[in-house]
Amino acid sequence: MISPGHKPSATTKMACTTDDDQWHDGDRLNEECGVFGIIPHQDAGAFTALGLHALQHRGQEAAGIVTYDGEQYHSERRLGLVGDNFSKQAVVDRLVGDRAIGHVRYSTTGETALRNVQPLYADLDTLGFAICHNGNLTNALTIRKQLVSDGAICQSTTDTEVIVHLVSRSKRHGIVHRFIDALLQIEGAYALVALAEDIMLGARDPDGIRPLIIGKLDGAYILASETCALDIIGAEFVREVENGEVVAITKDGIESHRPFPKRPARPCIFEYIYFARPDSIVGGHSVYNIRKRMGEQLAQESAVDADVIVPIPDSGVPAAIGYADAAGIPFELGIIRNHYVGRTFIEPQQQVRALGVKLKHSANRGQIAGKRVILIDDSVVRGTTSLKIVSMMRDAGATEVHMRIACPPITHPDYYGIDTPDRESLLAARFTLEEMREYMTADTLAFLSIDGVYKAAGYTGRDNAAPQFTDHCFTGDYPTRLRDREEDSDNRQLSLLAEVG
Amino acid sequence: MISPGHKPSATTKMACTTDDDQWHDGDRLNEECGVFGIIPHQDAGAFTALGLHALQHRGQEAAGIVTYDGEQYHSERRLGLVGDNFSKQAVVDRLVGDRAIGHVRYSTTGETALRNVQPLYADLDTLGFAICHNGNLTNALTIRKQLVSDGAICQSTTDTEVIVHLVSRSKRHGIVHRFIDALLQIEGAYALVALAEDIMLGARDPDGIRPLIIGKLDGAYILASETCALDIIGAEFVREVENGEVVAITKDGIESHRPFPKRPARPCIFEYIYFARPDSIVGGHSVYNIRKRMGEQLAQESAVDADVIVPIPDSGVPAAIGYADAAGIPFELGIIRNHYVGRTFIEPQQQVRALGVKLKHSANRGQIAGKRVILIDDSVVRGTTSLKIVSMMRDAGATEVHMRIACPPITHPDYYGIDTPDRESLLAARFTLEEMREYMTADTLAFLSIDGVYKAAGYTGRDNAAPQFTDHCFTGDYPTRLRDREEDSDNRQLSLLAEVG
Amino acid sequence: MISPGHKPSATTKMACTTDDDQWHDGDRLNEECGVFGIIPHQDAGAFTALGLHALQHRGQEAAGIVTYDGEQYHSERRLGLVGDNFSKQAVVDRLVGDRAIGHVRYSTTGETALRNVQPLYADLDTLGFAICHNGNLTNALTIRKQLVSDGAICQSTTDTEVIVHLVSRSKRHGIVHRFIDALLQIEGAYALVALAEDIMLGARDPDGIRPLIIGKLDGAYILASETCALDIIGAEFVREVENGEVVAITKDGIESHRPFPKRPARPCIFEYIYFARPDSIVGGHSVYNIRKRMGEQLAQESAVDADVIVPIPDSGVPAAIGYADAAGIPFELGIIRNHYVGRTFIEPQQQVRALGVKLKHSANRGQIAGKRVILIDDSVVRGTTSLKIVSMMRDAGATEVHMRIACPPITHPDYYGIDTPDRESLLAARFTLEEMREYMTADTLAFLSIDGVYKAAGYTGRDNAAPQFTDHCFTGDYPTRLRDREEDSDNRQLSLLAEVG
Amino acid sequence: MISPGHKPSATTKMACTTDDDQWHDGDRLNEECGVFGIIPHQDAGAFTALGLHALQHRGQEAAGIVTYDGEQYHSERRLGLVGDNFSKQAVVDRLVGDRAIGHVRYSTTGETALRNVQPLYADLDTLGFAICHNGNLTNALTIRKQLVSDGAICQSTTDTEVIVHLVSRSKRHGIVHRFIDALLQIEGAYALVALAEDIMLGARDPDGIRPLIIGKLDGAYILASETCALDIIGAEFVREVENGEVVAITKDGIESHRPFPKRPARPCIFEYIYFARPDSIVGGHSVYNIRKRMGEQLAQESAVDADVIVPIPDSGVPAAIGYADAAGIPFELGIIRNHYVGRTFIEPQQQVRALGVKLKHSANRGQIAGKRVILIDDSVVRGTTSLKIVSMMRDAGATEVHMRIACPPITHPDYYGIDTPDRESLLAARFTLEEMREYMTADTLAFLSIDGVYKAAGYTGRDNAAPQFTDHCFTGDYPTRLRDREEDSDNRQLSLLAEVG
Repeated sequence: MISPGHKPSATTKMACTTDDDQWHDGDRLNEECGVFGIIPHQDAGAFTALGLHALQHRGQEAAGIVTYDGEQYHSERRLGLVGDNFSKQAVVDRLVGDRAIGHVRYSTTGETALRNVQPLYADLDTLGFAICHNGNLTNALTIRKQLVSDGAICQSTTDTEVIVHLVSRSKRHGIVHRFIDALLQIEGAYALVALAEDIMLGARDPDGIRPLIIGKLDGAYILASETCALDIIGAEFVREVENGEVVAITKDGIESHRPFPKRPARPCIFEYIYFARPDSIVGGHSVYNIRKRMGEQLAQESAVDADVIVPIPDSGVPAAIGYADAAGIPFELGIIRNHYVGRTFIEPQQQVRALGVKLKHSANRGQIAGKRVILIDDSVVRGTTSLKIVSMMRDAGATEVHMRIACPPITHPDYYGIDTPDRESLLAARFTLEEMREYMTADTLAFLSIDGVYKAAGYTGRDNAAPQFTDHCFTGDYPTRLRDREEDSDNRQLSLLAEVG
Repeated sequence: MISPGHKPSATTKMACTTDDDQWHDGDRLNEECGVFGIIPHQDAGAFTALGLHALQHRGQEAAGIVTYDGEQYHSERRLGLVGDNFSKQAVVDRLVGDRAIGHVRYSTTGETALRNVQPLYADLDTLGFAICHNGNLTNALTIRKQLVSDGAICQSTTDTEVIVHLVSRSKRHGIVHRFIDALLQIEGAYALVALAEDIMLGARDPDGIRPLIIGKLDGAYILASETCALDIIGAEFVREVENGEVVAITKDGIESHRPFPKRPARPCIFEYIYFARPDSIVGGHSVYNIRKRMGEQLAQESAVDADVIVPIPDSGVPAAIGYADAAGIPFELGIIRNHYVGRTFIEPQQQVRALGVKLKHSANRGQIAGKRVILIDDSVVRGTTSLKIVSMMRDAGATEVHMRIACPPITHPDYYGIDTPDRESLLAARFTLEEMREYMTADTLAFLSIDGVYKAAGYTGRDNAAPQFTDHCFTGDYPTRLRDREEDSDNRQLSLLAEVG
Repeated sequence: MISPGHKPSATTKMACTTDDDQWHDGDRLNEECGVFGIIPHQDAGAFTALGLHALQHRGQEAAGIVTYDGEQYHSERRLGLVGDNFSKQAVVDRLVGDRAIGHVRYSTTGETALRNVQPLYADLDTLGFAICHNGNLTNALTIRKQLVSDGAICQSTTDTEVIVHLVSRSKRHGIVHRFIDALLQIEGAYALVALAEDIMLGARDPDGIRPLIIGKLDGAYILASETCALDIIGAEFVREVENGEVVAITKDGIESHRPFPKRPARPCIFEYIYFARPDSIVGGHSVYNIRKRMGEQLAQESAVDADVIVPIPDSGVPAAIGYADAAGIPFELGIIRNHYVGRTFIEPQQQVRALGVKLKHSANRGQIAGKRVILIDDSVVRGTTSLKIVSMMRDAGATEVHMRIACPPITHPDYYGIDTPDRESLLAARFTLEEMREYMTADTLAFLSIDGVYKAAGYTGRDNAAPQFTDHCFTGDYPTRLRDREEDSDNRQLSLLAEVG
Repeated sequence: MISPGHKPSATTKMACTTDDDQWHDGDRLNEECGVFGIIPHQDAGAFTALGLHALQHRGQEAAGIVTYDGEQYHSERRLGLVGDNFSKQAVVDRLVGDRAIGHVRYSTTGETALRNVQPLYADLDTLGFAICHNGNLTNALTIRKQLVSDGAICQSTTDTEVIVHLVSRSKRHGIVHRFIDALLQIEGAYALVALAEDIMLGARDPDGIRPLIIGKLDGAYILASETCALDIIGAEFVREVENGEVVAITKDGIESHRPFPKRPARPCIFEYIYFARPDSIVGGHSVYNIRKRMGEQLAQESAVDADVIVPIPDSGVPAAIGYADAAGIPFELGIIRNHYVGRTFIEPQQQVRALGVKLKHSANRGQIAGKRVILIDDSVVRGTTSLKIVSMMRDAGATEVHMRIACPPITHPDYYGIDTPDRESLLAARFTLEEMREYMTADTLAFLSIDGVYKAAGYTGRDNAAPQFTDHCFTGDYPTRLRDREEDSDNRQLSLLAEVG
């Protein structure tokens, strides 16, 4: 998302999600997108809808699918959940064709934001072109200014549109080479899936920051952000798209291009910590297992005597099971979710606000009263949720409350497609460990070490010379230039656009 | 509206309107748009909403307003009536700024069509640019193909977007000259109102086919399609924008440009016959008076002995009053409208369909039974309505039914922004006068003569050497080239676009 | 409508209507209901929907239909217009059966008001019973209190429910006699249509205040408030239900009962003045003709020299035509309606409110400027509209504005189903003629005389000994006791009910 | 719910729930209601909304609240979730008064069903009366027929309305005694909360089948179905309302009445097995703990060698934790929920239907592949879900799948407010254990024994002479007469009512 007149570092928007994250009241990192594509399959539209449904955790604000039937493109883009918009026969029936790509994303609310919902589509001179993007470009504003001064008219406020213009204006021959021509001009994080009539294109940035995998079903090829999108339709996992690789898929198979100099991948560690679904296999590892091992590792690093291990539902559960196993302390559901939160209590009266988390969860008093409790969460962003949960535990009669976080302190914002608050809102950027503990009112507080993360992922530790992941949120070690941020001062003149729906 | 893969002559869509036209079940000509702009006024947004409400008869399918507050543009574009969408305080409050332009239009239904709703907006290199268009370009497809092959990405399917791209790509200096540069490349009919920060631009095509007037209120200047949009806000009429004139209005006043060779105006005669509101003053003439005089003229040309003059409500009323006066026969409401039609009976069951016009109107039996009736309508398109009304009169006991039409036979489609059916659907293009009478089952049928139209407008008749109006729908005498139609054969390749929402 | 805790005389609610009445901004009398029934016809449900559509002018807030298929009743009741709710195939398909009754009514807005939408239905011991009511009972509260103290539970706040309880509790044998038993206990105005399995019942109060007619189609009998409901479905008029008559209709024909002492009818004069549709025949008279004659009579009573006669659209048109004929002054559409008001501008911003009537109508300046104008309206309630219109005429340049009202001054509220404001809100109850003229800022003001009304209806004048109509709104001469008003003081205790949805 | 014309035993409707139960696609038992009341508290309406939110698991189809402000009652009743309807300030603001009662329930969909949404309200002769009911009467039809033949008019199809009529018709003095008078005439299961101006009434049937507890907050008394409704507002638990007890609560305190002969309670065992929230304390026992102990007991009764214990989310989790503890086999999340199901996929295309459970859950392949899996579910109704899950486990590579159910086989329908399918649809009523195993395609299948249930609840086993619970669904031992069922044959004549909305 380009916010031209504002520092790109300051995307303070905290998209309000529908279910799991409600617990956290915005005290959460949000992934921006998931992508999916399939070619050629007679049920391409329906399978893309299912694949996006499986990827819904990567973006709940909007979804879109574009198909091509050999003569025409068909597009359905909607605000809201895939299940709410793409489960009806009538919608799927309109998505004619045996090639489809789709996208789920966060987005600002309101009707006019529809123009930002992907896939973006453009009529090029000789063919149509649709594209989906997971990630964030770090030089989009810089390119955009050049395009506009050359007479280009941008209709969305997404960084992704820049890619479309670059493709449209490329003088190279053939859509594959025009696409590569565009990629060579952009920087940042991207997992792209595009459709140009008979060709489905996939691409992953040179660092492989965002994930993209290849699957197969009934002779059709699939591109998707995670393996869970293959599982839902019974497709087989083939391999990951490699960092810096461009694949061009037709009914005749996959053609691989490598336009960038070869270098080791640095996938984003947060896919393991929070974003990817626990049943996905990312980089060859079960996400659930790595989360359990983070819990085990955390138990080894920060043991404390207690009566019960309580996960913060639902994302803290795997780490809590791991911690309980390693610590030999019983795992119990000490916090009960209210399953019927819906999208509600958006205008709560004062009393409700004060009651806070009780609307969504409640202490399971029988497991808490009189006990020493270890709470396990997967991460801490602003810390406001941690404070509320600790208080809830004490209200329910816990004699001690120990907070254990299954990742290191988040000290730096992300510029690659994760929606992080300003640095000044990050608890770990403001406070020392002891200050954080005091803020949360916990008896003890511990985070997993950085090396602990790498150990849980099967390494002996972080290779500081060539880190196996990008872990900039913990370390500030960004894998790419941040060009738009560097040139931030003269972005002001583009600010008009952001306001026009 | 560009429909690249279809013959532009074949816009068979008959927008379903809400009130007056329901009587005609699509047997009607539809104007495509109305435009309005005001600068500088603190209530610019609210006044534009009111102006568009007064122009609602020119387009009921969608409306939009863009304002500029000195720093940012604000846009609200909606499908539906002005009164339904722009009467709420919250909407008007979002339209911040003392400069505003707005638009009402016909449009296909459905959410995705929102991208075609005007004002169109583009972020140019140094400033924002919003534009509204009433009319239709006759070389838009030709230009569009050239633009796309140069790498332009078109986001709407409107001919108007072509103008935006031409402005964006113009190398001339200053927005006024870039705007004129664009106008010199387009052909067809246009009344344009545009907003570029501190400047409001207005333009009328070299023939002055579509209307555009200048008004004044509290020191602010107004551009509008008709004077009724001035009356609603209590503004004063200044003058018409002349054919081929470009006006650039700032807070300091109006600057007039004349980029085209001077020639006599040829405004569209249909504004008088049907489109303009009866209380508007067009070209210095009261529309109501001209319609009455058309009725008077018709009485003189085609007298018949009868007991009662019955207008087809509501558009036939002024001509019927004129006819009654001239013929000395009583005027009566022999057909009663049901005021509560709403937007309803969209899925009528078989019985309802058979009942036809009775849902919307009914015969006032007491005025019809046993009488010789002269029915007055303003025009005939397909003739299906005429047939139904004649039958309804006979069912109510009329002894004779004489149909009198207050304009000449419509034999040719329009390409300048009026939504006409195919030539083969125009009753007068298919049939002789006698065949038409037989089709309608009327006892006699007469149309106003072409010279009669000009007489009603105050001339002695049509000046065939230099016609005072464009009357191509009656004569086939089109005032401009129809370039897209001439080059129709190779438009096929753009057909992808039309289907992608 | 029973409003137990408030004086029944104080029904200040002014239902907001959709089309014609918008002009008047609540400055209008509203009829409360229209009724329709048909037995036996295979399309009973669909024809009832059409009949109610034709009766829509009698009530726009809600509509309902109940059918009986020989085994079960089927009910559809909705807030909103008939055309919006009963035009869909699916709805009509659910109304199975060859017997149907239906109702249109005013009602307060909001979902919970649905319980007040008729037909009311009750499961009696041996059969089901559905009923529709046009009119208002004047002893409903008195009866209701007795019923509740006997253990009855009332679920609606309508006076009509009282009838259902009386039928349910009647110890007489057979539904016809139980129905008559109930009628003998109620007072006030009623035109009732009820359905009890194989029998359709109709009844009109002893004075015949509200209208009810009998029609016939394809061997089926129809009951309806007005003949326009017969016209829409092509049915034949048979006769009026007489005052005090009860008809019981089965497939075998009509059986007439006369449970009340015979006396002359006194139908409500307002049906002619305002409520009935102009194309209806009421009491043997064309409503349109009577309105024209009221205009003629008014011209004779209150002549004034002028240049143009302008009706206040649309209800003033017939009287204006009559006035113009009688006065020999041209009739012109000096006020133009905006057809696209919709249901809108419900939250107008300040500027819009100030602009007032211009949103709905505008002066046709060409017919007004420099002229002496006679405005014709059908009635005056609060007078606020009259003031606005006179001002609009002066703004448009009228040199003189003469207001002529085609009925006498309304000085008394109605208690028989017409929604009148409090007496203190009635302009003619507060002011003398000269004060009213001054309030309206008209040059002259005249009302039709009471005798003039009777002359327009074909009499030589009002028969004060036995008035041919009930004209209590002009004279205070109420035809029945007003028992609930008399006993008003102890109604307080029922006030709980009104607030519970 | 009374369905007069159908056998009450045949309530085949399976309400579609929103979250947890979606997994089961209707293969689930549904509780019909939850109740809440508070007196006197200035935030009575808001607290009732919160209490109902906490009780949402007991009924998701509709919710209602009635308050009394000392002069008037205020009512809000809505279809849908509490959080969707009662979280807005405007709604709560309308619920004026310091006394409130509320209800959540299942209900058929559609607008007209609103009349069945509780609290039911009636205007009695001297005061208003509102009532909420959890449970089901077994002689409601019998009483209703008598009432109707006495002239009563029933407006809902709920059994609860019968109670209102009995109260209304009682000749005893004072609302408490009229209420008791009504209770003495009804049979079946009921937890009632009623409001009659200054008095809040609570009652539990003589067997205490449905739960009802008393709480306290800020000096106000609370009645609620479960303790979780106290926890959410921070109220204190006082005691349970006893079986056969009637409490009358005013601002002065609680008055207890015992109109029935004393006998031991027989609460419904299903509250522990499935209905109550795990964090509630029912009958002095933590529901979560009893469920865990059911898992432990099941492990002891039906041990099998395996690698992993997998709960069917979410209701199987506590039993699975208990089973895992007792069996010493690791507990893992082998099935992952998709958090974003929403209320969607209501019109799935064929492919989706075939994909079945994958839309809502997916196998966590890393925990399943190559392993011997023990699946733990809380109960089996139709068995369709069990089959799907076993298949999913095998597809994910499980080498063995052992199904363990933490309750006995359900062989008999419930008539006390639980929505059970017909007997012929209950898997355990149709099949032997081995046939069930074969149907599910599991390697082994075991249910908890009936004695095991009682052991988990802290008893040594079922006391067959005086069972500590009502367990009729497992044993057919119904605690009351089933009078309506016995007299079923002559209910036909009431069938009209059910169809009229």
